Amino acid sequence: MTLQEIAKTLELECDSKIEISGLNTLKDSNENELTFLENKKYIKDLQNTKAAAVLVKQEHASSVPSGTIALVCDEPYLFLAKTSKLFAPNIIEVEGAKPSIGDGTKVMPNVYIGKGSSVGKDCTIMAGAYIGDNVNIGNNTVLHPNTTIYRDCNIGSDCIIHAGTVIGSDGFGFANTKDGKYIKIYQNGNVEIGNDVEIGANCTIDRAVFKSTIIEDGVRIDNLVHIGHNCKLSRGCILTGQVGLSGSTTLGQYVIMGGQSATAGHLEIAPFTTIAARGGVTKSITEPKKSWAGFPLMDHKQWLRLQGRIAKLLK
Amino acid sequence: MTLQEIAKTLELECDSKIEISGLNTLKDSNENELTFLENKKYIKDLQNTKAAAVLVKQEHASSVPSGTIALVCDEPYLFLAKTSKLFAPNIIEVEGAKPSIGDGTKVMPNVYIGKGSSVGKDCTIMAGAYIGDNVNIGNNTVLHPNTTIYRDCNIGSDCIIHAGTVIGSDGFGFANTKDGKYIKIYQNGNVEIGNDVEIGANCTIDRAVFKSTIIEDGVRIDNLVHIGHNCKLSRGCILTGQVGLSGSTTLGQYVIMGGQSATAGHLEIAPFTTIAARGGVTKSITEPKKSWAGFPLMDHKQWLRLQGRIAKLLK
Amino acid sequence: MTLQEIAKTLELECDSKIEISGLNTLKDSNENELTFLENKKYIKDLQNTKAAAVLVKQEHASSVPSGTIALVCDEPYLFLAKTSKLFAPNIIEVEGAKPSIGDGTKVMPNVYIGKGSSVGKDCTIMAGAYIGDNVNIGNNTVLHPNTTIYRDCNIGSDCIIHAGTVIGSDGFGFANTKDGKYIKIYQNGNVEIGNDVEIGANCTIDRAVFKSTIIEDGVRIDNLVHIGHNCKLSRGCILTGQVGLSGSTTLGQYVIMGGQSATAGHLEIAPFTTIAARGGVTKSITEPKKSWAGFPLMDHKQWLRLQGRIAKLLK
Repeated sequence: MTLQEIAKTLELECDSKIEISGLNTLKDSNENELTFLENKKYIKDLQNTKAAAVLVKQEHASSVPSGTIALVCDEPYLFLAKTSKLFAPNIIEVEGAKPSIGDGTKVMPNVYIGKGSSVGKDCTIMAGAYIGDNVNIGNNTVLHPNTTIYRDCNIGSDCIIHAGTVIGSDGFGFANTKDGKYIKIYQNGNVEIGNDVEIGANCTIDRAVFKSTIIEDGVRIDNLVHIGHNCKLSRGCILTGQVGLSGSTTLGQYVIMGGQSATAGHLEIAPFTTIAARGGVTKSITEPKKSWAGFPLMDHKQWLRLQGRIAKLLK
Repeated sequence: MTLQEIAKTLELECDSKIEISGLNTLKDSNENELTFLENKKYIKDLQNTKAAAVLVKQEHASSVPSGTIALVCDEPYLFLAKTSKLFAPNIIEVEGAKPSIGDGTKVMPNVYIGKGSSVGKDCTIMAGAYIGDNVNIGNNTVLHPNTTIYRDCNIGSDCIIHAGTVIGSDGFGFANTKDGKYIKIYQNGNVEIGNDVEIGANCTIDRAVFKSTIIEDGVRIDNLVHIGHNCKLSRGCILTGQVGLSGSTTLGQYVIMGGQSATAGHLEIAPFTTIAARGGVTKSITEPKKSWAGFPLMDHKQWLRLQGRIAKLLK
Repeated sequence: MTLQEIAKTLELECDSKIEISGLNTLKDSNENELTFLENKKYIKDLQNTKAAAVLVKQEHASSVPSGTIALVCDEPYLFLAKTSKLFAPNIIEVEGAKPSIGDGTKVMPNVYIGKGSSVGKDCTIMAGAYIGDNVNIGNNTVLHPNTTIYRDCNIGSDCIIHAGTVIGSDGFGFANTKDGKYIKIYQNGNVEIGNDVEIGANCTIDRAVFKSTIIEDGVRIDNLVHIGHNCKLSRGCILTGQVGLSGSTTLGQYVIMGGQSATAGHLEIAPFTTIAARGGVTKSITEPKKSWAGFPLMDHKQWLRLQGRIAKLLK
């Protein structure tokens, strides 16, 4: 789709015929992608963007670098939301290659496997599992009953996904209009799961808005865990029951999160961090190998001391 | 079913032949419904009820208005539970009209659609979705894989229900017998979902015990959210991941609840209220447009101040 | 499998031909089971074990009783994990008896019932339900749509399992290798659910690592509840929405847990205990019939008093 065509749907003026392949952040856009600036705290990213074009307010137009076209509008985030729909793939493909199934793989009854998808060797795809279009699954992986893998997501080898878990559901994203409507930001990214990953029952792992939500090799996830869009769980992370990660948070290698703990969005958690059960992480953690607890979060030992102080208060 | 027949199943005396159409609260009952009073704090509602009849203790019988028949018993709530079973519909209908499916609607394999149900135009019903009997779905709505819509629930147009979500499961209700048995209160109400509603993956929205659990137009719900029976979410509410609402709580328009926040039951939350992540609401909020945090809940700014005090305590 | 054969897979020396039937704890092993000691705080259990053999470090070998064979190794827990795979049953059986279905039981379309399984009389098995191999279900039980019952689990009579709930998923267990790999401990136990149990939507109840996760008669569980492996819920327990129980915790009779409350693992909670919403239980509760709240947990009245003190702090 050309930039001119996109601009037209937004009732903006632009006569560039440059082909736009998709949407992305200021930082990550390439020279065929469209991006946006809503919040001026990212103005530095605007100055350095490589994007083909940017949705931007008039007041920031002067910061748009020379190689990038400014699409000036009042509400860039809302306009991004409207544009996202133009790049959304079909919910289901009706045409396309028959799925390929490797030797030794068992596919039980009542399974759906979409167009262009592949399942490797020696996998077990149990009854009621749904594998959307253009999904690739490695070897020796088990999908338990009633799991759902949305289109375009990939799962490695030697993984176990327990029953009822949903991988690739839409991230929670929308823009507001002035009259109180929410305009969906289509989540055109995917989920990428590495090798030797085990995910418990009835978890939800949202697809990325741009690019990928990433679960690296060796991760272990317990039941009823929620992982927001664009999170990254590095190798060896362990998330116990009912943990919740807001969007765009990155866990370094071997981070351990106790039951019902949670993080805010857009954080970076250093490798080998341990968060105790119910811990609530609201700021990035830069120092590795420390233990934290409480909400707001504090050093685990400090938290234990606090409990002692509170006990005294009560006497 | 006549009141006499109902009384007989409860081993109570009553010779009224009035036809009873169902059960309801003291406040909402009409002249063909049966109600109950267990807790005397609702005695004013008893005095004003329009119900055909009321299950009531001897000590409150004198407050029953003249147009209403008193069914005197020791344990009105337990008797209500027993009566609820008499009005429960079949779990699945084996007879009834074939479902109607609008033009342009795609129904994937392994989908079940019940008797008397209708799906509008241009919908997508994905593999493994279950649509019970007497369900009505508007136009252009998407049910993702392995969603379950229980019988008698309704969903509007332009809605998206993500994978694994359950709409219309039974509310959590039962009465105790003196010997420690729990008697189920059949949840004979339904769920009513408006237009332009998006609900994330693996959520649960319980059907009402009487009447409807209501999700109004434009609501946005993230993953793994639990909504108890008889809740009402007014237009434009936003519930993020792992939020839990206990039964019969009403959220005014545009209430926002952060991740893992929760409410007790039977509360009213004023419009444009914001509850921060992990906030726990135990009392109604009457003033609109305020921000709250913590558990117990306090003004968000006060909560931030409290954290400062606690930090000092630790030094 | 003989002990010699097991030892060989672990590259340990042992020439005993004793037939090993499975794995178990030090306390519960019988004379045909293999057990392990990793943590010396269980050394007393080692001295009293009846196990055929025990994986044990050199330093504890002298405490192994005379009737038990010591398999000395550096990392007993890791060796247990490796051994657990030898006893894991097939994920799905391809041979075996056709399931037996009692009179009056309705089985909807898109249901899978495994080899050697039985469903009693007058049950309703709704569309999309999955019943694994060797599962036994009593009479008059309802499985709502898209429920998953893993192999070898049993459910009594008069139970209701709501949509999307998963029973018998693997408990969260693995051992670490020195180079940061996690070795799965196969969860070769099951889940045993009594009679008259109702379980809400999208819950997860993990199977035991050894023996059974137990839900006794009359238990009531709300939606999105997580129950870890080897828990025991005694008769009449009530768990409301989003409760989480870590593994191996036992609730006495009629324990009530409020919304989003949780327990650590390996605890014993006395009968008739009440835990308020959000309560976090980290130690066993030995005195019955008390009410608790908060995290860390305290007497409910004390917790209310604490809130008063905190309110004063803010003035």
